Amino acid sequence: MSDVLVLGCGLIGTSVGLALRGVQDVTLHDSSPEVLATALARGAGRAWDGAEPAAMVVVAVPPSVTAGVLAEVQRLGVGQTYTHVASVQSHVQAEVEALSCNASAVVGSHPLAGRETSGPSAARADLFAGRPWAVCPSGSSTPAAVTAVRALVEACGGVPVEVTAAEHDGAVALLSHLPQVAASALAGLLVASGTSDTDGGHAGIAARTAGLSGPGLADTTRLAASDAALWTEILRLNAPQLAPVVQALAAELLDLHAALEVLAADAGDAAGTARRVGGDAAQAVGAVEAFLRRGNAGRALVPVKRGGLSDAFAPVGVVVDDAPGRLASLFATAGAAQVNVEDVRVEHLPGRPTGVIELLVGTDAIARLRTALAADGWRLVED
Amino acid sequence: MSDVLVLGCGLIGTSVGLALRGVQDVTLHDSSPEVLATALARGAGRAWDGAEPAAMVVVAVPPSVTAGVLAEVQRLGVGQTYTHVASVQSHVQAEVEALSCNASAVVGSHPLAGRETSGPSAARADLFAGRPWAVCPSGSSTPAAVTAVRALVEACGGVPVEVTAAEHDGAVALLSHLPQVAASALAGLLVASGTSDTDGGHAGIAARTAGLSGPGLADTTRLAASDAALWTEILRLNAPQLAPVVQALAAELLDLHAALEVLAADAGDAAGTARRVGGDAAQAVGAVEAFLRRGNAGRALVPVKRGGLSDAFAPVGVVVDDAPGRLASLFATAGAAQVNVEDVRVEHLPGRPTGVIELLVGTDAIARLRTALAADGWRLVED
Repeated sequence: MSDVLVLGCGLIGTSVGLALRGVQDVTLHDSSPEVLATALARGAGRAWDGAEPAAMVVVAVPPSVTAGVLAEVQRLGVGQTYTHVASVQSHVQAEVEALSCNASAVVGSHPLAGRETSGPSAARADLFAGRPWAVCPSGSSTPAAVTAVRALVEACGGVPVEVTAAEHDGAVALLSHLPQVAASALAGLLVASGTSDTDGGHAGIAARTAGLSGPGLADTTRLAASDAALWTEILRLNAPQLAPVVQALAAELLDLHAALEVLAADAGDAAGTARRVGGDAAQAVGAVEAFLRRGNAGRALVPVKRGGLSDAFAPVGVVVDDAPGRLASLFATAGAAQVNVEDVRVEHLPGRPTGVIELLVGTDAIARLRTALAADGWRLVED
Repeated sequence: MSDVLVLGCGLIGTSVGLALRGVQDVTLHDSSPEVLATALARGAGRAWDGAEPAAMVVVAVPPSVTAGVLAEVQRLGVGQTYTHVASVQSHVQAEVEALSCNASAVVGSHPLAGRETSGPSAARADLFAGRPWAVCPSGSSTPAAVTAVRALVEACGGVPVEVTAAEHDGAVALLSHLPQVAASALAGLLVASGTSDTDGGHAGIAARTAGLSGPGLADTTRLAASDAALWTEILRLNAPQLAPVVQALAAELLDLHAALEVLAADAGDAAGTARRVGGDAAQAVGAVEAFLRRGNAGRALVPVKRGGLSDAFAPVGVVVDDAPGRLASLFATAGAAQVNVEDVRVEHLPGRPTGVIELLVGTDAIARLRTALAADGWRLVED
């Protein structure tokens, strides 16, 4: 009997196996022999023989087939407790209640830790580290099953957040599915044509000036690379919760558009084309600024990377030669000063022999590190 | 006479001074004594006396006052060549033509390297490193002035991209201003209330389940932290180019919303509320998938971080103890194997004694590095 049986060796299933490696005994299964082979080769666990029991069964397959796979494995009677990792909980919970032969042993869950990549090759042992992982008991779930699923989440490095399936689905509609929609819509405009009043559409602009994009576009469209088939399913299953927030986002943009039309008319049209819009320019400027300030306020609610740690750490910048061994001696200095480097960022200046390295260290260690680096002759970037 | 006079010591102006430090003689001026003092303290240059001439004058003030400041400094006759860094070029170019006493010496430019932070404290010597920097000659600009501005861009580490002012403004509307708008709209919904059909609006959902957000929301809303006053100006000045693309983005979302309404009705309404929508569920699923695939195609056009370097480098993951000195010995091993580490990413597992470090190295060095690390007893993450 294994500790954990993972059914479905995609990004999430394989990452569960990697996260538990060396800590728990994990068996793996996938309907695709190639996918299973990759997960096994990565060391995520050992192959399941189709009968060996497990204390915990993790069903990590696409949401539309989750309840069916769960019911099937329950009929084999191999698990004590069952969880799944579906991105949409209410729909799957209703299906489980209908199909499962023992819904009391099932507690749905969902790690908020996806990547824009997919499959076992993209899996990481630290995918769940410090990330929220929703745990959604149904009315049938026993307290023992909930405790077991919370323990699994913690063993994988995640932070259990216990909510109802409906609360989960409302939250992810706004906090996960809507960002996906916004990123896809924005990226989609780069290829859309014929929707603009400029020559050649947006695609023409994008092709002529592809070089003119900064880091903002890259960040804002990162999610647009996500698996289209998987996300079609997710958006479909959560359509009742997602539709109103998509509509609200469109409404925000249409309000802004109305203000921009007033300002465009106010600026005058260089080509001499008459624009007929109503409204007052000062009021339109106020609307644009209010829109941006709401964005400021909303952004302040978004948990920053590294969570609560961010205030406790700060960067120290060092100018270094781009040569083998320089990083080693930089870290040797930090280590000798008893400073623990929490994170590192390297910025290279293309075509130049030097780069800037930022060491993220505890704020209480900054003065000690700067003194030690300066004493060893490092060139520091000013605060 | 200095090489470069920077007027306006915000993020961009101070970063120009820092980028040129040790290479060119830079004088600085700002209408705010506090801002100037910060830029001077950071080592971005020396204070301008109000009269000393400069080979190049960089006007780095907000776009709405750029042409006025440029005309004023031209009347002092201190510069040979003039540039500015306005985010919107056409409007400023028209103002310069009207106000300047020598428009032939002026070439507008714009580094695509903003951050969501602002002011001289946020400035970085490597802000422009490898980033595109638009150079927009007017019909009046002399070839010598264009050459001088291109040389400035390159001295700052940027990549000059020569386009007309109109081409620039169309490109940034789509590639820079629209991402800003999307991020602000998305973040704004987290605080908007009363626009949803759920209890307490989106703000209520966000507050109850604030823990349930992943890295996607953080990336997609990063730009929403931008300076609202500065961006109000930018959106206002580029309203003629921006309005149609904001409308196109809203239209994409409304099309998706229509498909989601069909799917929500198809899924049935748990609360028993009747929904009246037309359309076929299979067709709606096709529309959702086509929307996501357009996003995939658009994302593929977005230049990835590190540009053309990305294919030449790959990560090697190592499990390390979270203790002072461990990074140093890791880099010592890499240095001894003559492997140049291009970038470093540290992922900590909160509450655990170990972390995973990814070393980005040239693909030709991967085997050598893995062998050397394994020989020194490091625990490697599988490929």
